[in-house]
Amino acid sequence: MRQVAILGVGQMPVREHWDVPIRQLAVNAGRAAMEDAGIQRVDGIFVGNMSSGEMNQQRHLGALVADFLGQWGVEAVKLEAACGSAGSAMRQGIIGVASGEMDAALVIGVEKMTEPQGKEITAALATAADADYEAVHGVSFVGLNALIMRRYMHEYGYQHDDFAPFPINAHANGAKNPNALFREPITQKTYARGRIVADPITLFDASPIGDGAAALLLVPVEKAPDAVRVVGSASAIDTLAIHDREDPLWLKAAEISANKAYGQAGLGPDDIDLFELHDAFSVMAALSLEACGFAEPGQGVRLAQNGDILPNGRIPICTMGGLKARGHPVGATGLYQLAEATLQLRGQAGEAQIDGVRTAMTQNIGGSGATIVTHILQKPQSQ
Amino acid sequence: MRQVAILGVGQMPVREHWDVPIRQLAVNAGRAAMEDAGIQRVDGIFVGNMSSGEMNQQRHLGALVADFLGQWGVEAVKLEAACGSAGSAMRQGIIGVASGEMDAALVIGVEKMTEPQGKEITAALATAADADYEAVHGVSFVGLNALIMRRYMHEYGYQHDDFAPFPINAHANGAKNPNALFREPITQKTYARGRIVADPITLFDASPIGDGAAALLLVPVEKAPDAVRVVGSASAIDTLAIHDREDPLWLKAAEISANKAYGQAGLGPDDIDLFELHDAFSVMAALSLEACGFAEPGQGVRLAQNGDILPNGRIPICTMGGLKARGHPVGATGLYQLAEATLQLRGQAGEAQIDGVRTAMTQNIGGSGATIVTHILQKPQSQ
Repeated sequence: MRQVAILGVGQMPVREHWDVPIRQLAVNAGRAAMEDAGIQRVDGIFVGNMSSGEMNQQRHLGALVADFLGQWGVEAVKLEAACGSAGSAMRQGIIGVASGEMDAALVIGVEKMTEPQGKEITAALATAADADYEAVHGVSFVGLNALIMRRYMHEYGYQHDDFAPFPINAHANGAKNPNALFREPITQKTYARGRIVADPITLFDASPIGDGAAALLLVPVEKAPDAVRVVGSASAIDTLAIHDREDPLWLKAAEISANKAYGQAGLGPDDIDLFELHDAFSVMAALSLEACGFAEPGQGVRLAQNGDILPNGRIPICTMGGLKARGHPVGATGLYQLAEATLQLRGQAGEAQIDGVRTAMTQNIGGSGATIVTHILQKPQSQ
Repeated sequence: MRQVAILGVGQMPVREHWDVPIRQLAVNAGRAAMEDAGIQRVDGIFVGNMSSGEMNQQRHLGALVADFLGQWGVEAVKLEAACGSAGSAMRQGIIGVASGEMDAALVIGVEKMTEPQGKEITAALATAADADYEAVHGVSFVGLNALIMRRYMHEYGYQHDDFAPFPINAHANGAKNPNALFREPITQKTYARGRIVADPITLFDASPIGDGAAALLLVPVEKAPDAVRVVGSASAIDTLAIHDREDPLWLKAAEISANKAYGQAGLGPDDIDLFELHDAFSVMAALSLEACGFAEPGQGVRLAQNGDILPNGRIPICTMGGLKARGHPVGATGLYQLAEATLQLRGQAGEAQIDGVRTAMTQNIGGSGATIVTHILQKPQSQ
């Protein structure tokens, strides 16, 4: 297998893009990545998206996006793993290039969520959970995460206010990212006043939906020796329904995919300079840190309270806003994480730049931890 | 890249499966393929499906199906390319095994279409076309194919009755396949009396929807020297909207993907012993035969009229009923085609067995020819 490099990065700001149809969101991000790479023709296009069929009355995004990028004759397909769709698209793009089947692959994540009504979005997001054993009982996706957060507080003795450092860090970092949806810092007081969405989850524990697209252009390292490299890539599943897990507070698929990626890279948690994790809800940030070896079980919140997740901390997370402040256009999120990690490794993160970043990790989660995709990126040794 | 063998085959009969939820359809087919292969644990699961989010309120099928197959920790994802979803899943499974990333991949196509109302199905199928430039004008998916059929008749001077050999062959072959939805032969008279769906397409030109799932278990050839092999695999896209094509009667993506697959296999149309093509509509069968080199432009219908597509003809097609008689559970169809081709090559096609089959081709189409995936399978030389 060949090693894979990230030669191009493109992204649309996360917004309510009323004037941009879903095809154009994807095409704009894809074209930006191709221009960044200086490549006009690719061999494969992998589009991550969760629910364009329901939200935009448009399926078949692989062919559609390839068509509007002028890439006729190319191979193209859409990948879906709920909110883990874009990370899953990245996996297939990497395997396509690493295997030698393709010399240039374009990986795009896209979601346009502001067209449907609110209740339609809630219904669409619930399809990430188990339709027959979770959603049918009326529990929404936020509701499921509320159960997890409540359980975490109960097991480890935390209060709601203890989670504040996660969204405070995310919003502070989002303020430095021109592509972020929310660019205002928040305080402990703002957090404490957040109105309830699903007890104990408040508005400031839940990431916002949005319209967005992000893209990467992948080539073999031989063709781009100076580009950021993929040194670890793995995906794993856990039970879809939370009640089927031995421990609802342990993201087994995060542990498995992170350990695989660490193994491929010959690295461990201590070697990671920043971690773009999947803070769809505050509690998921804590669980992700714990399952990937950055904190003991129940200590993820403590890690945040100690300031270790801040830009100058031991393991900076959500350095450009995370899902909470950059926004969470669900099927695009995994590629925003990867695009941001790449910009950090290139030293192109602008105001959000973290000093001395050599190795970055990303983790994209589908459902309440049922699909988890982990990637580790690195600067070339020479730089 | 390693060569890939098909070690296991599994399928559910295409029916109205009122008592079987979508997860169970997929799990039954997947388990059958694993049992057929004698393999209990796989490294990757690729699920082809078009519209479970809309039709069954369930997305995230990769994790769900892996979960209910007991394959926790494995990598799993869903692939979508409209009616070409299962062929696209096969492509990713093949690349996964060929690359060495996986030693055993399970590829499943599944669709459960009889839960929603008829008009909901028509709306869901229209999402395979271009939402903003085709579907928005009210043209259904059948309507688009009716335009193609009318154009074909006009260009090449055919009458509606000339297409009869396609469904007559499909229904005759379906009668020999216990997994087919329709098992009654039809005559020229039945065809002539078919009621109009979208002029000139009648009931006997349009493949029926249904519930179904089919699966294959892929391993490297070294692990299964006696199993059927994949000797060609390619996918290509064309414009999503038909009006954007130079020639609406030429399936360019079929030509490109077939030529790639022929090249990989070192074969041409004359070497193919049977062709499981995508007869979603009668006219698509003709176009597929033409684009893949079995007939000159406009001569696909003539080929059928000459009896060349019959089980004892020069190039038997739809040997176990095709989409028309076996049924077309959209996101599963590509794997039914591949499963049937594999059974033919193994000599396990029962009453539908074609004599002396050494090489078989399959072609799965998404939209009106926007995504086309071609595979060539072969018996080992030793057999």
